[in-house]
Amino acid sequence: MNAPQSPSDIRTRLQGAASPDSAARDAAEARNSVLTKPPGALGRLEEIAIWYAAWRGDARPRIESPQVLVFAGNHGVAARGVSAFPPEVTVQMVANFEAGGAAINQLSDLAGAKMSVHAIDLDTPTADFTQGPAMDEAAFMAAFNTGWDAVDANADLLVVGEMGIGNTTSAAAISHALYGGEAADWTGRGTGVDEAGVALKAQVVAEGLAANPQAAEDPLEALRCLGGREVAAMAGAMARARMDGIPVILDGFICTAAAAVLARTAEGALDHAIAGHASEEQAHVRLLEELGKAPLLSLALRLGEGSGAALAIQILKGALACHSGMASFAEAGVSDG
Amino acid sequence: MNAPQSPSDIRTRLQGAASPDSAARDAAEARNSVLTKPPGALGRLEEIAIWYAAWRGDARPRIESPQVLVFAGNHGVAARGVSAFPPEVTVQMVANFEAGGAAINQLSDLAGAKMSVHAIDLDTPTADFTQGPAMDEAAFMAAFNTGWDAVDANADLLVVGEMGIGNTTSAAAISHALYGGEAADWTGRGTGVDEAGVALKAQVVAEGLAANPQAAEDPLEALRCLGGREVAAMAGAMARARMDGIPVILDGFICTAAAAVLARTAEGALDHAIAGHASEEQAHVRLLEELGKAPLLSLALRLGEGSGAALAIQILKGALACHSGMASFAEAGVSDG
Repeated sequence: MNAPQSPSDIRTRLQGAASPDSAARDAAEARNSVLTKPPGALGRLEEIAIWYAAWRGDARPRIESPQVLVFAGNHGVAARGVSAFPPEVTVQMVANFEAGGAAINQLSDLAGAKMSVHAIDLDTPTADFTQGPAMDEAAFMAAFNTGWDAVDANADLLVVGEMGIGNTTSAAAISHALYGGEAADWTGRGTGVDEAGVALKAQVVAEGLAANPQAAEDPLEALRCLGGREVAAMAGAMARARMDGIPVILDGFICTAAAAVLARTAEGALDHAIAGHASEEQAHVRLLEELGKAPLLSLALRLGEGSGAALAIQILKGALACHSGMASFAEAGVSDG
Repeated sequence: MNAPQSPSDIRTRLQGAASPDSAARDAAEARNSVLTKPPGALGRLEEIAIWYAAWRGDARPRIESPQVLVFAGNHGVAARGVSAFPPEVTVQMVANFEAGGAAINQLSDLAGAKMSVHAIDLDTPTADFTQGPAMDEAAFMAAFNTGWDAVDANADLLVVGEMGIGNTTSAAAISHALYGGEAADWTGRGTGVDEAGVALKAQVVAEGLAANPQAAEDPLEALRCLGGREVAAMAGAMARARMDGIPVILDGFICTAAAAVLARTAEGALDHAIAGHASEEQAHVRLLEELGKAPLLSLALRLGEGSGAALAIQILKGALACHSGMASFAEAGVSDG
């Protein structure tokens, strides 16, 4: 699918995106109701299976080709000292992803997912957003479309992860622009800053919003002005998945902030996404509440990379394995109560 | 390992069971601290990996041979009308397990687990425990040892599941005997009874305790007098796993009631077990609190069969894949903050 040419093109496409297949949903619901278990006994697995079936237009699908995309970017705002790690860790971790040594590599392998890493202009950090927009429109569209183009149209499930020293500060600023409140509502410890570090992050976020007033008016402007390249790419990949009917599992705070930009840009633009987990980053839970998405896992992860979502692939696989593999009461000769 | 000969033999063995390997635990903790992630960023996955390493006596293990055992039994107390399903469903579902059509089959396959079904004297329900002990000592030991002998000594993780119409009532009675409170604290909807059904279950549980006063004095007596054969077998399998150093993932209410018998029989007898999930059966959450075990998943499952625990195998696999597969900061050339 050809990539969008401008922010207004992104908006138009998301507004015109197709709904999930209601016939497949109905057929999946009918199937669910005759499987050999008490009604509702598989809890959220049943909801997930029906939701997924509707998005895939198939009443009895399985998850066979999940894709994990990891985007990396560097942030001008990192120079403000908002992270516990120095900016050079971004490129070091990209090498680690490429060598197969990171958590996301192990979790992608376990899930049978095809994983790839996309480092975006690491030598050119975005501008410090406390001084003005992080990206101009050309840089923003290039980053967004790096994500858009990275999606495999044959994938049947997508996870997007990230690496970018300073990016919880970017995600906090975007969230604050989208949902208001106080800057401190959206800032947390990230990879491990102390209390003074959290206070600094809140100050930097507040400065970012003051320097970019248009961010509060338009979600895509929030992404351009306050985002990193990897955050824009995540949004691009999730937007593409929306157009292609590929369900998405949201990861942690940064991924969810990117996703929230889509949700605020067009009604229903994030209906293809489920929350993989609730991270330890406090603002993540609030963001999921704003989005009305209940997390599948709650294991105190706060790593990013797509790690929580990649782990949650297994839950979706389990849901679809049950839905599509179980016998019906009639097939098994079991009395249905 | 030869099977125990009597309840007192069970008690003696559990009291003498070895502790996990502290050297392996220390080595696993040391390894965890140098992996390429911020300290603690993998949350509960880190705890799980270290706990598992200690039980396996290996600082860098993986989960390669999980075993799922499903035990089935029939309950005299089912004649009191405590279930939404008739007793013949037990044998029908056993046939479904054997044919591969149940939820546990799909989830075991997905987890790469070897699954087997053990139907125990389905033609001979236990006695109605409101009239006296459900099993005599010979029947109890035979059922317990069916579980004991079913464990594969080469398994590296164990899940025990069950099928038995009426067995949430049995689990409620056991829990009530072990932890006191009111009968109504331990009764819930099971496979789907209505409010009057729940009240009937509570009455039946109270009658069961009145008819078997020794159950409140001795946990193994609670299991013999109030348990079903499949509940005793689950306890037997988990006891065997304790002796063999095989970690266990607890499933729902019935499994956890069987596990609680071990925990109350000897200090540390359940230290090899982790809670796979919190089920929708309300008493399950209370029972996990009594045991001090926090569930890994909370997906509103209430199926039994071992389904929630089998799904949670994936979480443990993920934890160990990260722990044992990730690069260290030194190996990857990543700055550690």
